[in-house]
Amino acid sequence: MELRERARHYFEELQRSICGELEALDGAGRFAEDSWQHEPDGTSEPGGGVSRVLSNGTLFEKAGVNVAAVRGRLTERLARRLGVAEQTFFATGVSLVAHPLSPMIPTVHMNLRYIELAERAWFGGGADLTPHYLYDDDAVHFHTTWKRACDAHDPSFYPRFKQGCDEYFWLAHRGEARGIGGIFFDYLGEDPERTFGFVRDVGQAFIGAYVPIAERRRTEAWWDHERDWQLVRRGRYVEFNLVYDRGTLFGLETRGRTESILMSLPPLVRWRYDCKPAPGSREAALVAVLQRPKEWIPG
Amino acid sequence: MELRERARHYFEELQRSICGELEALDGAGRFAEDSWQHEPDGTSEPGGGVSRVLSNGTLFEKAGVNVAAVRGRLTERLARRLGVAEQTFFATGVSLVAHPLSPMIPTVHMNLRYIELAERAWFGGGADLTPHYLYDDDAVHFHTTWKRACDAHDPSFYPRFKQGCDEYFWLAHRGEARGIGGIFFDYLGEDPERTFGFVRDVGQAFIGAYVPIAERRRTEAWWDHERDWQLVRRGRYVEFNLVYDRGTLFGLETRGRTESILMSLPPLVRWRYDCKPAPGSREAALVAVLQRPKEWIPG
Repeated sequence: MELRERARHYFEELQRSICGELEALDGAGRFAEDSWQHEPDGTSEPGGGVSRVLSNGTLFEKAGVNVAAVRGRLTERLARRLGVAEQTFFATGVSLVAHPLSPMIPTVHMNLRYIELAERAWFGGGADLTPHYLYDDDAVHFHTTWKRACDAHDPSFYPRFKQGCDEYFWLAHRGEARGIGGIFFDYLGEDPERTFGFVRDVGQAFIGAYVPIAERRRTEAWWDHERDWQLVRRGRYVEFNLVYDRGTLFGLETRGRTESILMSLPPLVRWRYDCKPAPGSREAALVAVLQRPKEWIPG
Repeated sequence: MELRERARHYFEELQRSICGELEALDGAGRFAEDSWQHEPDGTSEPGGGVSRVLSNGTLFEKAGVNVAAVRGRLTERLARRLGVAEQTFFATGVSLVAHPLSPMIPTVHMNLRYIELAERAWFGGGADLTPHYLYDDDAVHFHTTWKRACDAHDPSFYPRFKQGCDEYFWLAHRGEARGIGGIFFDYLGEDPERTFGFVRDVGQAFIGAYVPIAERRRTEAWWDHERDWQLVRRGRYVEFNLVYDRGTLFGLETRGRTESILMSLPPLVRWRYDCKPAPGSREAALVAVLQRPKEWIPG
């Protein structure tokens, strides 16, 4: 079977297993499944996918896991923006964003994708954590899990991909990272089979990276003002995804299926003018770390 | 006095008078004033402005009126995106967005600006209405007010600027307009003094365009599901402003003052997966009009 087909099947399998684990974690919520075919109005050919969404669970306010495979032709405008010649593409990937109800449980995101653009083929993806309140041990656990998955393949991966993550999820207009990072890689594909092995290991590591954090924070009490802070921080999440995220902009620009592309957006969000945390507060401690991404694993 | 100075003073005066009128309309809320100087981290020079925000009023959940004057140099990237050579700019303008609490009262936006880019100088701006529930007589009143203001200057203005508005506030990825339009114009400046006269008349017409609509809808009862629909529609407002709006992207890209640029974002917003109005509902009637912008004034 061609690599593109095997990649796609793997992403579908990963979607199923992760949804099962997240349902078990939630305890009550169930993923609704929405299989779709999409006929874009531009030059792209029809694509298809499966979106799975859990809404109003006990732990997750909204969690979405999407698998898609699309092929088409870049618009001239997009080709120019990406700095490539106008050409055909194929893309398949899985993407996941989970927004817990409790502000003490971090939002998490993972994306794994396989892309062919004219003669080139590569994998990209990563996983990152967006806490609203900072627990150092959560950050260390998350990063340690990814470092282990990376180190099994190449000792240079974790430091490169950790830095790549801090750079990618940067809101320049806020002078802040979206969260406390994780790993992010792109254009990885000198040896496609080996790279696919690495991507599978990243996929397998996700549950171990996130579930223990959610389990130990689910019993933390929280107050209205902490929920409010979470909604304000979710505004930054929206700003990142709509202003900077390449995947989102690529999807919208190629007239992908909007509901699946924007499934990542939080369920409820607040914007408040000039909202600044009080000095010395837990909120201020989070912002300080977002402004200067740190090394979570002593070198 | 130079035109740029007179434009700036006019925008400041307009801000004061409109804030007074909106406070009178609200009945309880008061605009807080925030004068700021901003030192961008890029190549732009310091700019300044005054942001006025009314939060949690009786009629307005959030209303912001901002005046700013900035000068600087376009980044190479932005110059490329705008299709001009890298060069210096000066911009001053007033912008206003008011988000009522009641889903029966439409959100309103107005922006007026004066820009100098190298040798060129022009005015731009407009006003548009974003209802969550459609009342035809509100749409007709809003458009009629702008048509009158336009017709006093040039009979070709209203049809051109009405179409410009429908085209500008278009969410391509949704296949919907942001609202029911109004007027939008840009690069208007063959005769700067005459254009300034037109811009002042647009500014003076704002209160008459909006306040009567808010007054007649403020006593309409509404239910939770209607408030919920308003929050979902506000998500589209965010999508437009962060993905398409040239002013927002220009401001963020030139490292303007983020809080003033994003003052336009609604106070509370909801994203729900694949939210579709029931056939035959009032929500569906709104969407139908957004999908096919219509002429509100019989020709």
